[in-house]
Amino acid sequence: MGQNLALNIASKGFRISVWNRSESKVDDTTERAKKEGNLPLDGHKDLSAFVQSIKKPRKIIMLIQAGPPVDKAMEPLLPLLEAGDLLIDGGNEWYENTDRRTALCESKGIRYMGMGVSGGEEGARHGPSLMPGGTKEGWDIVKPILMKIAAQVDDGPCVSYIGPGGSGNYVKMVHNGIEYGDMQLIAEAYAVLKQMGGLTNPELQNLFKEWNKGELKSFLIEITSDIFGQKDDKTDGYLVDKILDVAGSKGTGKWTIQEAAEHGVPCPTMQAALDMRYMSTFKAFRQRASGKFKGPATKPQVTQSTLIDDVRNALYCAKICSYAQGLMLLQTVSNEKGWGLNLGEISRTWKGGCIIRAVFLDRIKKAFDRNPHMDSLLMDDQFADEIQQREVSWRRIVNAAQAAGIPIPALSASLCYFDAYRSATLPVNLVQGQRDYFGAHTYKRTDDEGGPYHTQWTHFAQT
Amino acid sequence: MGQNLALNIASKGFRISVWNRSESKVDDTTERAKKEGNLPLDGHKDLSAFVQSIKKPRKIIMLIQAGPPVDKAMEPLLPLLEAGDLLIDGGNEWYENTDRRTALCESKGIRYMGMGVSGGEEGARHGPSLMPGGTKEGWDIVKPILMKIAAQVDDGPCVSYIGPGGSGNYVKMVHNGIEYGDMQLIAEAYAVLKQMGGLTNPELQNLFKEWNKGELKSFLIEITSDIFGQKDDKTDGYLVDKILDVAGSKGTGKWTIQEAAEHGVPCPTMQAALDMRYMSTFKAFRQRASGKFKGPATKPQVTQSTLIDDVRNALYCAKICSYAQGLMLLQTVSNEKGWGLNLGEISRTWKGGCIIRAVFLDRIKKAFDRNPHMDSLLMDDQFADEIQQREVSWRRIVNAAQAAGIPIPALSASLCYFDAYRSATLPVNLVQGQRDYFGAHTYKRTDDEGGPYHTQWTHFAQT
Repeated sequence: MGQNLALNIASKGFRISVWNRSESKVDDTTERAKKEGNLPLDGHKDLSAFVQSIKKPRKIIMLIQAGPPVDKAMEPLLPLLEAGDLLIDGGNEWYENTDRRTALCESKGIRYMGMGVSGGEEGARHGPSLMPGGTKEGWDIVKPILMKIAAQVDDGPCVSYIGPGGSGNYVKMVHNGIEYGDMQLIAEAYAVLKQMGGLTNPELQNLFKEWNKGELKSFLIEITSDIFGQKDDKTDGYLVDKILDVAGSKGTGKWTIQEAAEHGVPCPTMQAALDMRYMSTFKAFRQRASGKFKGPATKPQVTQSTLIDDVRNALYCAKICSYAQGLMLLQTVSNEKGWGLNLGEISRTWKGGCIIRAVFLDRIKKAFDRNPHMDSLLMDDQFADEIQQREVSWRRIVNAAQAAGIPIPALSASLCYFDAYRSATLPVNLVQGQRDYFGAHTYKRTDDEGGPYHTQWTHFAQT
Repeated sequence: MGQNLALNIASKGFRISVWNRSESKVDDTTERAKKEGNLPLDGHKDLSAFVQSIKKPRKIIMLIQAGPPVDKAMEPLLPLLEAGDLLIDGGNEWYENTDRRTALCESKGIRYMGMGVSGGEEGARHGPSLMPGGTKEGWDIVKPILMKIAAQVDDGPCVSYIGPGGSGNYVKMVHNGIEYGDMQLIAEAYAVLKQMGGLTNPELQNLFKEWNKGELKSFLIEITSDIFGQKDDKTDGYLVDKILDVAGSKGTGKWTIQEAAEHGVPCPTMQAALDMRYMSTFKAFRQRASGKFKGPATKPQVTQSTLIDDVRNALYCAKICSYAQGLMLLQTVSNEKGWGLNLGEISRTWKGGCIIRAVFLDRIKKAFDRNPHMDSLLMDDQFADEIQQREVSWRRIVNAAQAAGIPIPALSASLCYFDAYRSATLPVNLVQGQRDYFGAHTYKRTDDEGGPYHTQWTHFAQT
C-alpha cells in the first residue's frame, strides 16, 4: 500500500523520498519507480538521511499497521522533525489514537493528520479516495499533492479536509462499515438468486454486468460480475464455488458496530454483515447443525424474472437504509464532538477511488445539496420515492427468502429498520412499563410534558 | 438496592452494619430495620467506626454507582481493612474494572469480588439472583450468607461461585443483554397482537396470564400481564397506552453488544433489542417519517386464533435463539480467559430472583446436564424438537408482520440467525472472493486444506 501510494505521488511529478525498516522493500520500491518510467523517487535506508532529504516544511506519510506500531515508528521520527513539519498516518487507525497523537505533535509545533485511504492496492497506485483529518494547517500544505494523487471524478478529486483530530479515521471506519454492509447485501442477493432462482455462474456474471448499468452501478457490483466469470485453474468449474465460506475481518467493521452502540445509533444492516462474517467462522458448528435442521419442507414458487427484479429492488432499498445508518452515525458523532463533518462533501469524495464507489454516491451528494440538514437519507424526496416504488417488491423477496429458509439478515434487518424508522409509535411503551415495574426506572407520558412518573403497579392474581 | 439487600441479610439473622455517605439514608435504614421486626442492623455515620464494628474477617458489600465512584469509595476504605477481609462490589460494573480492583486488593491480601445482583428492589429485599466472581477464598467465607439471602428454588439457592476476576460482572452483563432481548421480543409480540390481531388490553392481560401457565412462564410474562391490566389514574383508559414510547438504557445491554462484536459472537436478537431502544429515542424523526411513508397498502388477513398461536410459537423460538447467543458469548469469553464458567449452573442460578427468571431456565439447566459441551443450545435435542415443531408457525408470523409493515427486528433477526446457523454453507465465499479481488486478502478452498490462496482476478469487459 505504502509503495503504491509513493509511486502514485512520484508519478504525479512530486519528488518523493521513501524509507522502510526492511531494506529490500526500499530497493523494491526504487526498482519499480525506475521501471514505471524513471519516477522521481529516492530510496533511503537511514531514517535520519531520509528526513534530511525532505524539503521543509516536511510532509511525511506513514503506512504501517495501526496501533502500537505507529507509536513505535514515531518514537525515533519525532526528534528528527521540526516545528511546521507534517506527519500523516495513512493507516486504518482507531480515531482516539489519532486524537492523542495529534495533541502530542501539536504540543511540539508539528502538524499531524490521520488520513483514511481507501481503494486497495490498485487505488493507492492509481487514485484512492482520501479522508484526511487532523491539524488544519497540515491540510493546507499537503492539499496540492493530495488533490493530484486522489481519484478524479466529474466534480473534482476524491479528497477533502474532513475535520479535526481523528475525524478522518472515523469517516474511513464508517466507510468500511458501509463496505461490509454492501458486500453482505450482495452476498444475500447471490444466495437468493442461486438457491431460489437457480441462476448459474455465467447467468450471475451477466446479470451483475447488467445491473452495473443502472442504479446499482458500483465497483463492488462490477467486481462481483467478474468473480462469477472467473474459472478455477485447479478444476474445470468456477472459482467462486471452490472458495471456502469462512470470512476474516480486520477491525474497522467491528469498531463501526461498537461505536454505533456507544453513540446510540441503530446500524442493523452493517451489524448483520459483521455477524455473518462471525457466523461464517463457526463452519464446523454449522455443518453439524445442518444435519439436524432441514428447514422448510415446502418452498415458495417464484418466477425467475420476478425474483430477479425483486432481488434488485431489495438490494437497492437495503443499500439506502445502510447508508442512512452510517451517515446518521457520522452526523451524531460529529455533533457530539463538534467536528463539523460535511456529509455531502464526504459522499462526494467516496464517488471514486474507494471500495464503495458508486453512482449512488453522487445521488447522496445531491440529496445533501438539496437539504444539508435532513433527519436521514430516507427523508430525501428522491430516495423516499425510489424506496416506495420498490417497497412491495422488497417485502415480497424478504418474505420469500425467509419462507424458503435462506438467511438474509441484512436485507431483512434493513426492512425492519425502515419499518421502525417510519413508525410514529413503537411498542417501547411496554418496555418502559416493564422497566418501571421491576426497577422503578420511571417513564414519561404521551399526554403531558411532565414527569418522569413512577407507578406502584398492581399485581393481579395469577389464577 | 443497598438498603434492601442489607435488610434481607439482617432478616436472615446475620447481624449487619451499614454505612452511607448520606446520614439520612443511614437513619432511614435503621428505621426500616426496626419497623420490619427489629432486625439486627446497626447504622454507622463514621466509616472507621463502621469498619471497626465488623467481625473479622470482615465482609463488606458496596452498592454504589459503577465506575469511578467505586474507586472513590475504596480509597478511604482500603486502609481500614486488614489482610483476609473481603470487599464485594454489588454494582453493574464493567468487568475489567473488577479485574483491576481484584488484583489491587489481592496485592494487599484483601479479598475482592464483583457480584452481579439481579432482581430489582424487590429481589434485593426478598431474594435476588447473585453472580459472585473474584477471589475464590472470598466466596468461601461469604457463601453461608449469600446462600441464605439469595432466591430459593427447587434445587437450591440462586447463587454460585462464577469464576475469577470480573467474571461475575460479565455474567450479569450478559444476563442483562438477554433481559433486553426478552423485553423486546415481548414488545414485538404485543405490537403484532395489537396491530394485526386487534387485541384489547384486557384481552392481552388474559392472554399473557394464559401464556404464563406454559412454556413461556416467566417473571417478564407475568408482569406484562399486570401491565396490560393497569388502569390509568389520570384518564379513564389503560396506563400502557399513555406511556411514551421512548426507552432509556443503562449500559449493560450496550456492553453486551460491544463484547459480542469484540469476541466474534453473533448476538442479533439482543442487538435488535438495543437498536430498538435507540430507535425509540428518535421520536421526532419517526413522527416526521410516518407522514412520508405510509407502509403496505394491503395487509395480510390472519385469523386471530392462528395469529395468537403463531406469535406464541415465534416468541418461544426466538427466545431459544437469544439465549443460545448469550450463552455462546459466555462460553467463548470463558474459553478465551480461562474462567471455566459452568453454563448449566449459571442457568440454574437464573431460575429465581432475577428479571429473566423462567421455567425455561430449568430446561436449559437440564440441557447442559445432558450435554455440558454442546455447540449451542440449539443443538440440544429437546430444544431442537421444540423449534422444529414451531418452525412453520414462526416463519408464518415473521412473514405476516413484515408484509404488514410492523417492525419485528428481534423476531426476524432470530429467524435469520437460526437459518444461518443451520446453513452448512453461507454465501460468504463471494465475500471472500471480493476481499481477495480488491484487497488481496486471500481465501481458502473447499477442496483442500492448503492455502491461503490469492488469485489474479480477470476483469471482463463491461460492455
